[in-house]
Amino acid sequence: MLVVQKYGGSSVANPKRIKKVAQRVSEYYNAGHQVVVVVSAMGDTTDELLELMEEISPNPPAREVDMLLSTGEQVSIALLSMALYELGVPAVSLTGPQAGISTDEVYTKARITEIKPTKIQKALAAGKVVVVAGFQGVNNEGDITTLGRGGSDTTAVALAAALNADVCEIYTDVDGVYTADPRIVPEARKIKEISYEEMLELASLGAVVLQPRSVDFARNYKVEVHVRSSFNYNEGTVLKEEKDLEKKGVVTGVAHDKNVVKIGVFGVPDQPGVAYRLFSELAAHNINVDMIIQSAGKEEGQNDISFTIGKNDLPKTLEILEELTKKLAAKGYSYDDKVAKVSIVGAGMVTYPGVAAKMFEALYEENINIHMISTSEIKVSCIIDIEVVEKAVNAIHKKFELNN
Amino acid sequence: MLVVQKYGGSSVANPKRIKKVAQRVSEYYNAGHQVVVVVSAMGDTTDELLELMEEISPNPPAREVDMLLSTGEQVSIALLSMALYELGVPAVSLTGPQAGISTDEVYTKARITEIKPTKIQKALAAGKVVVVAGFQGVNNEGDITTLGRGGSDTTAVALAAALNADVCEIYTDVDGVYTADPRIVPEARKIKEISYEEMLELASLGAVVLQPRSVDFARNYKVEVHVRSSFNYNEGTVLKEEKDLEKKGVVTGVAHDKNVVKIGVFGVPDQPGVAYRLFSELAAHNINVDMIIQSAGKEEGQNDISFTIGKNDLPKTLEILEELTKKLAAKGYSYDDKVAKVSIVGAGMVTYPGVAAKMFEALYEENINIHMISTSEIKVSCIIDIEVVEKAVNAIHKKFELNN
Repeated sequence: MLVVQKYGGSSVANPKRIKKVAQRVSEYYNAGHQVVVVVSAMGDTTDELLELMEEISPNPPAREVDMLLSTGEQVSIALLSMALYELGVPAVSLTGPQAGISTDEVYTKARITEIKPTKIQKALAAGKVVVVAGFQGVNNEGDITTLGRGGSDTTAVALAAALNADVCEIYTDVDGVYTADPRIVPEARKIKEISYEEMLELASLGAVVLQPRSVDFARNYKVEVHVRSSFNYNEGTVLKEEKDLEKKGVVTGVAHDKNVVKIGVFGVPDQPGVAYRLFSELAAHNINVDMIIQSAGKEEGQNDISFTIGKNDLPKTLEILEELTKKLAAKGYSYDDKVAKVSIVGAGMVTYPGVAAKMFEALYEENINIHMISTSEIKVSCIIDIEVVEKAVNAIHKKFELNN
Repeated sequence: MLVVQKYGGSSVANPKRIKKVAQRVSEYYNAGHQVVVVVSAMGDTTDELLELMEEISPNPPAREVDMLLSTGEQVSIALLSMALYELGVPAVSLTGPQAGISTDEVYTKARITEIKPTKIQKALAAGKVVVVAGFQGVNNEGDITTLGRGGSDTTAVALAAALNADVCEIYTDVDGVYTADPRIVPEARKIKEISYEEMLELASLGAVVLQPRSVDFARNYKVEVHVRSSFNYNEGTVLKEEKDLEKKGVVTGVAHDKNVVKIGVFGVPDQPGVAYRLFSELAAHNINVDMIIQSAGKEEGQNDISFTIGKNDLPKTLEILEELTKKLAAKGYSYDDKVAKVSIVGAGMVTYPGVAAKMFEALYEENINIHMISTSEIKVSCIIDIEVVEKAVNAIHKKFELNN
């Protein structure tokens, strides 16, 4: 069997943990499997490098940021290979560029464009464990690029696809994907299997076990991903195609996200192109807009537009709106950062009517007011007051009997 | 003018010093010069990486050591490039492999085999300062190699040769090469110009301003090297061909080395091949032998062989001798680690008779006993007791009037 395993920064935070990872890898190797290991930078390394950087330049060129940050994973791969040697396992480390991972030109958040795994395949054929630096690649210029936050997950999934691996194991500090955050819902249950689409929604909705981009990659290349803990041997959660799932639930899980601000722009003239001008201006400043609702305003010929953004983007958004509402001849704007988003996700939802109504019922029974609603084929999201979000998640979890 | 500048680890030990280096580089750039900068790892980085390594493996594979250590310089080049940007100087960082530096396969002490500076030349043509990681290259397999201790000096000189640079400036924490160690001889004088051969001898004899290999490289490719301090703007010492020196002294400098052990093997049968067997065995264990003297032993048909080694190699050498003296049917062996080596170096020496005698006279006048003598065309070395080495250096320095 050919296995790709990915270990995050906390799993390789110090020499002791690196030895533990080597131990686990050696078990797979000794069982006769071919293993490719993808690792992140050790614990706080990236933050330490960023601190050094900030002492030198508040706004450094992105190419040099990638040159700097990519050293973190390079240290990890060398140390893990050494630890494997200590256990008698022949290993070879490869940087992203050496592993044949090509990306586009966008430094600090590059996208993988192609993988030529010749060097990896040669090393595997020679009976070696291959340890690859996550998070990095090389562009057409031969310059080092990095893939942005969570990039090591994407490296692992992309390598699994390129190598046609039997499975891609993502090791993290939790046991897998749960029906809700276990810190909030004690009876939350680990999900045994989940479809790519459901995982993608959950990841985007705040269940930060996997980065959305890596899930998207897995879906596009049909890579079976196993999310599990590096601290125990429990089975985790397997991501696969919906048609291959053993059993499809109506609702798979409840997610919540406190990093939400609701923005209202009111009294916007009811003319074509207004929404376009508003949201293209926000996009031009890299502000990620989530839910959008447009409704008729109080006065005839006017609309109200509401949308949500992440808290980081609030100052910039207010700056833009100050100008833009004048240009658009809107009456004004407001914001509310005391809100949160609660969502249900389930691949079966589309064929069962009344799922959304059941969620609203759960919220109504707890006397929770809904500010905004947004739906897709496999999810329903509501914006509610932040102080009742935990009550809401529990109520919904119970309503859909997700503990069974 | 095209200048290659090299800054060592102490010159880039922290963000503040990196900014200072950027300042100096920017002065050259703003004066209209093309600048290629070679940097070492920041201060203690290499030692910190080695510590991590030792926690994982006492004897790691050399390939992985190089993968690990090469990250140190990569951090430096990224940070220095950022610091240059801050000063408005367009800069681009290149790792050793990216800079086109090819080496042989010997990890941890690779030798540069070829430089293809296409990427550097392109960046220079685009008006950029190029910041290259010292100490590293890439072998035929595409693996990262490092050049061993002092490797960044060699990188700088080799790049200067490949680029046909006008000068190679080696920035260090001293003002240049002195006629003797100024900490021992207060009236020691900075040498304005020195030939490659003299510098090579001085470097090998304990004047650790430049690594011998980089001097050898400079000599072979006739690179004019300027050794100077990164903490001031004083002129340093220029290395050039002997024929280009303004003025050739008989004796250029006095060097001393306390890292010496004298070994005696006595009563060795006077047969062909004995010296060969002794020294090839030592070489096979990577023990660097310096001075060698063979003399007739007390009994007919027997010889005594004396030689010197570095202190690090003493335990291993004694281990080998224990076996080897039996095999060679020698009477025994002894060692003395309370000795030191004092040497005079001068390109003019070969044409002036009596230079060695004058050195012996200086030692005699101080009542210093000489244990061993070794001479070459441009140097004379004596092994003396370690407790009189400072007195010896001063006496010789005075005798040859090196302060003038």
